[in-house]
Amino acid sequence: MPKTDIARRVYNHTWKLDPIVRSLLDTDFYKLLMLQMIWGLYPKVDATFSLINRKTSVRLADEIDEGELRAQLDHARTLRFGKKEMIWLAGNSFYGSKQIFSPEFLRWLAGFRLPDYHLEKRDGQYELTFHGKWVETTMWEIPALAIINELRSRAALKAYGPFALDVVYARAKAKMWEKVERLKLLPELRISDFGTRRRHSFLWQRWCVEALKEGLGLEVFTGTSNVLLAMDNDLEALGTNAHELPMVLAAIAPNEEALKQAPYQVLQDWESYYGGNLKIVLPDAFGTDAFLRDAPDWVADWTGFRPDSAPAIEGGEKIIKWWQERGRDPRDKLLIFSDGLDVDMIEEAYHHFHGRVRMAFGWGTNLTNDFSGCSPWPNPQLEPISLVCKVSEADGRPAVKLSDNPEKATGDAAEIRRYIRIFGDKGRVSHKVTV
Amino acid sequence: MPKTDIARRVYNHTWKLDPIVRSLLDTDFYKLLMLQMIWGLYPKVDATFSLINRKTSVRLADEIDEGELRAQLDHARTLRFGKKEMIWLAGNSFYGSKQIFSPEFLRWLAGFRLPDYHLEKRDGQYELTFHGKWVETTMWEIPALAIINELRSRAALKAYGPFALDVVYARAKAKMWEKVERLKLLPELRISDFGTRRRHSFLWQRWCVEALKEGLGLEVFTGTSNVLLAMDNDLEALGTNAHELPMVLAAIAPNEEALKQAPYQVLQDWESYYGGNLKIVLPDAFGTDAFLRDAPDWVADWTGFRPDSAPAIEGGEKIIKWWQERGRDPRDKLLIFSDGLDVDMIEEAYHHFHGRVRMAFGWGTNLTNDFSGCSPWPNPQLEPISLVCKVSEADGRPAVKLSDNPEKATGDAAEIRRYIRIFGDKGRVSHKVTV
Repeated sequence: MPKTDIARRVYNHTWKLDPIVRSLLDTDFYKLLMLQMIWGLYPKVDATFSLINRKTSVRLADEIDEGELRAQLDHARTLRFGKKEMIWLAGNSFYGSKQIFSPEFLRWLAGFRLPDYHLEKRDGQYELTFHGKWVETTMWEIPALAIINELRSRAALKAYGPFALDVVYARAKAKMWEKVERLKLLPELRISDFGTRRRHSFLWQRWCVEALKEGLGLEVFTGTSNVLLAMDNDLEALGTNAHELPMVLAAIAPNEEALKQAPYQVLQDWESYYGGNLKIVLPDAFGTDAFLRDAPDWVADWTGFRPDSAPAIEGGEKIIKWWQERGRDPRDKLLIFSDGLDVDMIEEAYHHFHGRVRMAFGWGTNLTNDFSGCSPWPNPQLEPISLVCKVSEADGRPAVKLSDNPEKATGDAAEIRRYIRIFGDKGRVSHKVTV
Repeated sequence: MPKTDIARRVYNHTWKLDPIVRSLLDTDFYKLLMLQMIWGLYPKVDATFSLINRKTSVRLADEIDEGELRAQLDHARTLRFGKKEMIWLAGNSFYGSKQIFSPEFLRWLAGFRLPDYHLEKRDGQYELTFHGKWVETTMWEIPALAIINELRSRAALKAYGPFALDVVYARAKAKMWEKVERLKLLPELRISDFGTRRRHSFLWQRWCVEALKEGLGLEVFTGTSNVLLAMDNDLEALGTNAHELPMVLAAIAPNEEALKQAPYQVLQDWESYYGGNLKIVLPDAFGTDAFLRDAPDWVADWTGFRPDSAPAIEGGEKIIKWWQERGRDPRDKLLIFSDGLDVDMIEEAYHHFHGRVRMAFGWGTNLTNDFSGCSPWPNPQLEPISLVCKVSEADGRPAVKLSDNPEKATGDAAEIRRYIRIFGDKGRVSHKVTV
């Protein structure tokens, strides 16, 4: 047999594009859950999503070639859900339930494609926006972020020789395994991969997910938010809902009272679609303090909370106290931590809350994009940046997130002031956002 | 193009043996240099080589399957020097000299094959001996050691899943690169690979050699003792001579005076074949103190010394002092350190001797077989052992090495006492031998 597979070599020469997103399932599971609800309840709402690079010192438009970015975005627009993928969505159990997606929704989904995008350069950044129906634009969030982050990794490694690349990935694997060994010491840990959007690359995320599966076992590593990786590796697809739900509902609210009720309207809408372990509250869109203060009592009956912008211990304690005030036993409840976790933080929260509340960890950037110290020479381009794709407008009105951390707030300044006037500013404390 | 290369898959299924030694050039360069001299001056001498496992707590016969060992040894015996290899030996420059190997020797070498071996199990160890003409048996040393060490690595990793293996090698690469980065800080370092005999595996040695080539550059990484890797990677093939020369000459010496002169006879024999940078003295076969004390003055005109069994600084200082006593300037001289080096020892010797003498480092086991801490779980089988293949008899008489370190002495106890009576015991100090 020849040493060189000539056909493969020639095929490799003819590559026009090495696609970053090869499947519409290469997205976070919560997008599909939210999509079904948006499709059912808000099919006519317009929503604009916009890329926001919180780390403006990184000039993305200088690091990433516009032609390559357009080629990747264009390629993603050619994708449809595949036959096998549709069958899996219909036949698989999610969170213990069969047929979580209705046949009508799946029929619609089979024809889905990503809508057009608007891209221009400004001040060294890319202005990347997606205008259109919410039920279409929402699906750009994850692929857009994954594409930009992976193009940035590729640019970072462009000048590396094959040997240096081998060292980079060897070190990253060794580093990843150190983390696995530390996490193995936490026997009741429940952790999952939430790292799609910020991943170094698809192949690296896949390696990390397989590492966690083999290293921690399925008792501890409970699944991945990435639907494609869940399908391919027989893992649970995990995730619930995101800030875009209260943000859009608040933006389109006809009056201030409706705006104030938007966070609870979201929960009622959600409950009309999903139950059980999917009843997870994301409380911080307009500040957790305000959310808890004004919450109807039935909110305390939900399965759990995902505090997403306060430090884990502080945020968790606040919710535990609130459950207790509402007469619920926190030991029956679930806290999902997913904000900028690293192993130190996971260990700390695990020990802090162990026995007092059920916990789960959704591990993101530090799982799938931690190459710090892995390059043979310093390369800041390998460091992840705080890049998000947020809903910025709904039906022509500005969308706002206040967050518990003012550094993570998004939206027009005047509109933020208005929201603060409505929800209050209590409990919002600045913390540096790195990822 | 098909995802699976069916022909390759089927070919892989039909593997009967994955040979460890695939070429007679997969040996240390000094064996070829010594071989030419043995062929020219001692073609009739018989010499027996014997495997010695200094770490008897490791029961090699339990770790390594006898059938596999025989299959590998038998395969090595089928090898001949290839046409390309012979052309390279004839046409390449070694140590700056063309045609270092004579046409007559090369003609003889073209027909060379490894002689038979004798293998049996005793007390959990393998007794592996090579009887025959010195000019044949000498060539077994390196392949025999490489085969046993690699079979041991393979056994150590037999139960590992593909993912655990990936982590093992990722960690080993990361670890190796840490060493490269430390060595890069020593700008005038001259270092080479001497790790063939103790290597984890051939492929791993190749990776390490390529790592050093790319990481340190050819100014610092001066070459490899492995002839095959030197040829394949356009590196210098390095090495001079070994203890077997004085050991055999001492064993066959007709009287005590000739025995006492054997170490210097070796040098005169050597000089009749090689000059320049190949004029390196290996002084410790019967103790460096005795060697220096009795050395004729012309020995001080040789290019350098390779102190091989004393701690680097102590051993180096002893030789520098001797050069000075003999009126030579150590700054014109070369010290080659090659005994159990790790990066700490290299750094220490480099800084200690910098500017006072020329230095070169021959890096062995810690370069090509350092998997300590790389396995996801503790695995003592991955730790290298102190395995040697030494001449044990010449023309029916026992061969002895005293060494500067009594722990490294080899030979019959009564005969060792006789040698100590002849050469003295001064300066011989025990140090733990780990590799």
